[in-house]
Amino acid sequence: MEILKKYNTALHSHLKNAVPEKGPRQLYDPIAYILALGGKRIRPALTLMVCDFFGTDFKKAISAALAVELFHNFSLIHDDIMDNAPLRRGEQTVHERWDVNTAILSGDAMLILAYRFFENYEPKMFHELAKLFSETALQVCEGQQHDMDFETRDDVALVEYIKMIDHKTAVLLGAAMKMGAIVAEVSETDKDKIYEFGRNLGIAFQLQDDYLDVFGNPETFGKQVGGDIISNKKTFLYLMAVGEGSTTQSEELEHLYSINPKDPTDKINTVKELFLASGAAEATQAEIEKYSQLAYSLLDTINISADKKEILHEFGRDLMKRKV
Amino acid sequence: MEILKKYNTALHSHLKNAVPEKGPRQLYDPIAYILALGGKRIRPALTLMVCDFFGTDFKKAISAALAVELFHNFSLIHDDIMDNAPLRRGEQTVHERWDVNTAILSGDAMLILAYRFFENYEPKMFHELAKLFSETALQVCEGQQHDMDFETRDDVALVEYIKMIDHKTAVLLGAAMKMGAIVAEVSETDKDKIYEFGRNLGIAFQLQDDYLDVFGNPETFGKQVGGDIISNKKTFLYLMAVGEGSTTQSEELEHLYSINPKDPTDKINTVKELFLASGAAEATQAEIEKYSQLAYSLLDTINISADKKEILHEFGRDLMKRKV
Repeated sequence: MEILKKYNTALHSHLKNAVPEKGPRQLYDPIAYILALGGKRIRPALTLMVCDFFGTDFKKAISAALAVELFHNFSLIHDDIMDNAPLRRGEQTVHERWDVNTAILSGDAMLILAYRFFENYEPKMFHELAKLFSETALQVCEGQQHDMDFETRDDVALVEYIKMIDHKTAVLLGAAMKMGAIVAEVSETDKDKIYEFGRNLGIAFQLQDDYLDVFGNPETFGKQVGGDIISNKKTFLYLMAVGEGSTTQSEELEHLYSINPKDPTDKINTVKELFLASGAAEATQAEIEKYSQLAYSLLDTINISADKKEILHEFGRDLMKRKV
Repeated sequence: MEILKKYNTALHSHLKNAVPEKGPRQLYDPIAYILALGGKRIRPALTLMVCDFFGTDFKKAISAALAVELFHNFSLIHDDIMDNAPLRRGEQTVHERWDVNTAILSGDAMLILAYRFFENYEPKMFHELAKLFSETALQVCEGQQHDMDFETRDDVALVEYIKMIDHKTAVLLGAAMKMGAIVAEVSETDKDKIYEFGRNLGIAFQLQDDYLDVFGNPETFGKQVGGDIISNKKTFLYLMAVGEGSTTQSEELEHLYSINPKDPTDKINTVKELFLASGAAEATQAEIEKYSQLAYSLLDTINISADKKEILHEFGRDLMKRKV
C-alpha cells in the first residue's frame, strides 16, 4: 500500500534482525522463514503511522510494530496447522516444510519473542503495551476458537459472527494502531478512539472480504472467488441469507452448504443468486457501510490534523479493496 | 512436600480462579482440566517460599507463582503433543481428551494468561518479572528443541546434554525462585544467587532423575525403572558410558540402544552392568554432587537467616529423592 511504504521500508531492516542468530536452528529457522515470506505488513506499518501522525518520531514505535508483526505470524503458523493448510503466501506452510512439532514449538518461541520487543520501552510504557498485547492476543485465540466451533454449529447468530471476526481480525488492527498512540503518549481518549477506529475498520474489512469472496472481481481479488462457497463456510452473507430469506431460500441454501460437487460452478452461481434474492448481499453491504462510517466518525473526532485524517480515510478506502 | 505445604494451600484457591469463566469453553476447559490434574506445584510454591524467606508477605508473590505454574502447564500441553504422550499424571493428555488443535490453541491461550498475571504488579516490577519470564520461557523452548534434536543425533557432547537439561528444566526452577526475590525487592546479588541456587539444584535434580531411572528403587521412584533404557534415551549416564567406557563397552551399548526387544529385562540388566563397569554410574553421581554442592555453596552466601538456609537445604535433599 503506497501510503504505508515509508513505514514498511523502515520495518524491513529491523525484521531481518528480529530472529536470534544462535541455535537451535530448528527452532529459529522457521521463524525467519515465515517472516521472509513477506505479506503486506499492514499492521506494524499502522503502528508506525499512528505514532508518526500523533507527532512522535515513528522510529520509537519500531519495537512495538515488530511485536505486532511477530504475533501475527505466530498466529499464522499455528492457524495453518489447525486448518491443515499446505500453502501460505504461495509457499509451503511451516508444518509442511518442517513438521507439526516444529511448527508448534517455533510458534511458541515466536509468541515469546514478540513479548520481548516491549522490553525496549521503559517500565510504564512496557506495562501498557504488554497489557494491551496480552488482552488482544487472548481475544485472537478466542476468535480462532469461535471460528472452529462455528464449523460444526448450525445455530450461529449474526451477532456471534461479528464477535468472532472482531476477535479474530479486528482487535489486532485496533491494537496495532493503539500501540502507536501509546508510544506517542497521547491522551487516553485519543488512544481509545484510534483503537476503535482500527477495530471498526477491521470488522468492515472482514465483512468486505466475505463479500468479495462471492462477488469480487476474479482479476483483482487475489484469491479464488467462490472459495467460501466451495468450502461451505458460513460467512455473514450466508447467515444473513438463511436468517432473512424465505423458507424455500433458506432450505435451498442449507442443502447447497451440505454438498461438495466436483464441479462447483452451478453451486456457486445458485448461491450467488440466493444471496442477492434474499437481500443478504444488500444487507451485508449496509453492514460494511455501518462499520466503516462508525470508524470514520470516530476518526473525525481524533486530535490530529485534517490532512492526517484524510490519509487515514484513504487508508480505510484502500483497505476495503485488499487483503490484509 | 511437607516444607511447601503452607504455600501449596495458599496457591490452591487462587489456581481455581486462574481460568476465565467465560466462553469459548473449548478454549478454557482444557486449561482448567490440566490445572486440576494437580502435580506437586513445586515451582510456584518455591516462588512463595523465597518471597517469604526474604521477609516479604508471600501473598504478594501469588500472581508471579500462578504465572510460573501456568507456564509450566502450558509447556506440558504442547510437549505432550510433540511426544505423542497418551497420559499425563495418570489421566488423558489434553490432545487425547480433546484433539491436537484444541491442545495447540488452549496451550497458546495458557501462555498468554501466564503473562497476564504479572499485570498485577506495578510497572517496574512487572517489567522485571515479565523480562525474566520471557527469557526463561524462550530457554525452555530451546531446551525442548535440543532434546528433540538429540533423538536423531549420535554425537551429543556431555556439555550439550547439561545445557539441554539446564534450559529444559533448571532455568525455570531458578526463575521461579528469583521471582520470589524480585517481589521481595532484595538486592540484585541475592536475586542472582537464589536464581543460581535453583538452577544448579535443577541440573542436579535432572541428573539424579536420569540416575534413578536406572538405579532407583522401583517401590519409591514413582516411574517404571529402566524406562529410559527401554526407549533408548541417551541420558547423561549413556553419554558418559559411551564416551568414557572401553571400545568394547561403547560398541555394546550402541548396539543395545539400537534394538527394542519384546522383553527388555536382559537389555536393562546388561546396560546397568555397563553403566557400572564403565565408571559412568560413579561419574554421574560425582556430577550430581558437583551441582548440588555448587547450589549449597551459593545458598550459604545469601542474605537470609541460618534456619531459612537449613530449610532450603532440606528442600534440596527432598528434591533429590522425588520427581518435580
